[in-house]
Amino acid sequence: MAFRTAWRNKCILSGIFSQLSSSSHHGHGRLCASTVVSSQQRSNSSSSRIIVDLNQKTGVAVMQMKSPPVNSLSLDFLNEICINLEKLEMDKSCRGLILTSGLPKVFSAGLDILEMYGKSPESCGAFWKAVQEMWLKLYSSNMIIIAAINGSSPAGGCLMSLTCDHRIMVDNPRYSIGLNETQLGIVAPFWFKDTMANTVGHRTTEMALGLGLLYNPTEALKIGLVDQIVPEDKLMSTSEQIMAKWLAIPDHARQITKSMMRKPTIDKLTSQREADIQHFVNFITKDSIQKSLQMYLEMLKKRKA
Amino acid sequence: MAFRTAWRNKCILSGIFSQLSSSSHHGHGRLCASTVVSSQQRSNSSSSRIIVDLNQKTGVAVMQMKSPPVNSLSLDFLNEICINLEKLEMDKSCRGLILTSGLPKVFSAGLDILEMYGKSPESCGAFWKAVQEMWLKLYSSNMIIIAAINGSSPAGGCLMSLTCDHRIMVDNPRYSIGLNETQLGIVAPFWFKDTMANTVGHRTTEMALGLGLLYNPTEALKIGLVDQIVPEDKLMSTSEQIMAKWLAIPDHARQITKSMMRKPTIDKLTSQREADIQHFVNFITKDSIQKSLQMYLEMLKKRKA
Amino acid sequence: MAFRTAWRNKCILSGIFSQLSSSSHHGHGRLCASTVVSSQQRSNSSSSRIIVDLNQKTGVAVMQMKSPPVNSLSLDFLNEICINLEKLEMDKSCRGLILTSGLPKVFSAGLDILEMYGKSPESCGAFWKAVQEMWLKLYSSNMIIIAAINGSSPAGGCLMSLTCDHRIMVDNPRYSIGLNETQLGIVAPFWFKDTMANTVGHRTTEMALGLGLLYNPTEALKIGLVDQIVPEDKLMSTSEQIMAKWLAIPDHARQITKSMMRKPTIDKLTSQREADIQHFVNFITKDSIQKSLQMYLEMLKKRKA
Repeated sequence: MAFRTAWRNKCILSGIFSQLSSSSHHGHGRLCASTVVSSQQRSNSSSSRIIVDLNQKTGVAVMQMKSPPVNSLSLDFLNEICINLEKLEMDKSCRGLILTSGLPKVFSAGLDILEMYGKSPESCGAFWKAVQEMWLKLYSSNMIIIAAINGSSPAGGCLMSLTCDHRIMVDNPRYSIGLNETQLGIVAPFWFKDTMANTVGHRTTEMALGLGLLYNPTEALKIGLVDQIVPEDKLMSTSEQIMAKWLAIPDHARQITKSMMRKPTIDKLTSQREADIQHFVNFITKDSIQKSLQMYLEMLKKRKA
Repeated sequence: MAFRTAWRNKCILSGIFSQLSSSSHHGHGRLCASTVVSSQQRSNSSSSRIIVDLNQKTGVAVMQMKSPPVNSLSLDFLNEICINLEKLEMDKSCRGLILTSGLPKVFSAGLDILEMYGKSPESCGAFWKAVQEMWLKLYSSNMIIIAAINGSSPAGGCLMSLTCDHRIMVDNPRYSIGLNETQLGIVAPFWFKDTMANTVGHRTTEMALGLGLLYNPTEALKIGLVDQIVPEDKLMSTSEQIMAKWLAIPDHARQITKSMMRKPTIDKLTSQREADIQHFVNFITKDSIQKSLQMYLEMLKKRKA
Repeated sequence: MAFRTAWRNKCILSGIFSQLSSSSHHGHGRLCASTVVSSQQRSNSSSSRIIVDLNQKTGVAVMQMKSPPVNSLSLDFLNEICINLEKLEMDKSCRGLILTSGLPKVFSAGLDILEMYGKSPESCGAFWKAVQEMWLKLYSSNMIIIAAINGSSPAGGCLMSLTCDHRIMVDNPRYSIGLNETQLGIVAPFWFKDTMANTVGHRTTEMALGLGLLYNPTEALKIGLVDQIVPEDKLMSTSEQIMAKWLAIPDHARQITKSMMRKPTIDKLTSQREADIQHFVNFITKDSIQKSLQMYLEMLKKRKA
């Protein structure tokens, strides 16, 4: 059982350790002028924190998340991600997307806790709406999306990976992936849960969410949380090989099939987005939950000191 | 495939073999005065057939079922179990429960067939309501419940195990576990089926229920029917280690997550309890089904002779 | 992961390669006079393309599909299959059915593409209704049905296998099985998808349908698409052994259990059969889809030449 070894995983918090230090960065998330280094067949549309490289020949874009130190998903960063996804979605020349990190050791540390701590209900609501939006855009994308997971991927980072058509993780035992919300005293919402259950089944999800488990790559492969693990230097080439297989399938047939598989899960959220936001705001602004977050943030500070 | 070996399992009936002899016991299930052997940090609330030991320090209770010879779930015994569960559920000092057997070789032989054979529709209905009640209490419990399965666990015994947060079984090839109702000519109801499918998936459930399969511990581990198998002398220490991991998670986050995972399955029964009882009564009082039970009971008698 | 090896499978189209040559056969599907070679305990009811041998002693029928060259499921052949299934279903002496191919190397190549290419909407609709009918008859059968898969089984052939209670495949790496519709630019309908997801789970189904994967027997066993693989000369004896285990279960308990497992999936189609037919007709008669089928047929011609 992955359970036993997952538990021994000492680095449960390591993936999100440096979350605090992101505070000095977030809030500066205006879209910067794109640095367009266009060659004949590449179009690069990049903001300061999202680097997109679309190969017009293959129809495949690589999107690197680069919001130091750990790609925390703040409101601004979520908005940037969504804008870039939308651009690619509307670009007829783009059929596939490889989603990866431009930072060392971390794919994404997940939702930025500072967006949930000490904020007004309105701010919390706006933040949650952006989280929903990112999930909806990714999970219902017409593009082939491959997660090239080159670092730890807890909580919201794991969610991003789960929305993809294929997950390839670097085989480094120091990296971990999972929905570890309960470890922080918070709760993954039903659509996080549904996305995970669609991937690894009901029972594994129940145990993983209940214990807030983070899995190392070998364990993640075993339970089906990722599809493949590869050495770091093979990550992009493997991603491209897998992408080539998906590109061989006619788009319309692939897209209808993908939609058929995912529509019930997507409809469940879209039919109650507002209620889900309200539910989140009520929960996260509770004194007891704010206290939990405070304790967690203080623990991170101590660890850092 | 577990199928092939499960089939060779010669002791399909052994777990419930001595069921008949329980007839001399059931009916005496009045709650006896609790034998309170209270030390500073332990409160023991025990009836003759349910021994409860709550460690106030850890917040973990151990509940031993001890209704000889095989912990058959008669109406009275079910009521005792429910009363004890309710007490613990309301006891703020109790966070976790280890459910085990106080008898050798058997966890629980499942529903007492004598409650279904030759009884009035009213009696059958009251019995079924108690079975529902036990399942609802266990599956929706706010406590962390770990099944320490120290013997065979067919039918209703398997159901009890399936409601827990974690299942640890003694690695003895003579012990078996499974929903083997069809072997007796009866049928597991939809909520037994749902509980199993939530644990091992649709296909394994279809085959297991269709053939009434009982699995030995190794097979049960392979299909995910139990989470761990351990030597007999490591059962309680392992249960406590696993419990410690669950206790490390903040209760509110764990409980909300557990409820999110299980609510749809629970709601399905609670929205139609009366209809489910009627359905059971109609089925079990049929001449053909009573005949099946009679044949089964006679076979048990012969085996015993 | 089965994915990697499945992909290397070079014979993705081989199973349906000779589909074209079936054109000279289909259309002659009138039920021929049965060749009754009745011995004391066997009743043979055979048309030219369906050979049925019912052993009255065991209650087990063997149905061989023999529509050269590859058991393509044309409208006529589907009707023949349904008529034979109905006869057996109504025959009280028949409890179990072994479904197999009377042709070498192929179980069934799936739906006959020539029923979908260049046909009127009416013809397409009639064809689709027959496909639905076959699925409904197989998936809701009261008989124990075992698929003895003695050759490749792509698309509709895989669907037939998935409806059975048990799947045994000949362990020949040249045989493959899977729902490969997207490879042809078409899409498996929701009830194909549901049947597969009930068998191998959501995630494996998503990947398998998205990429139109065909699995060799070893891979198919690994993901649970088949239950057992055996050498060619052990196929029928193994099928009979498995059948004996199912026959040991009282019919009424087995049938109620089977219905409980499958009813939600069956109800989903029966509640919208007409809409599903209309949806198929609208899709398949599109210019772009007809173009895809044309290209596929031309490729088959070239391969054959």
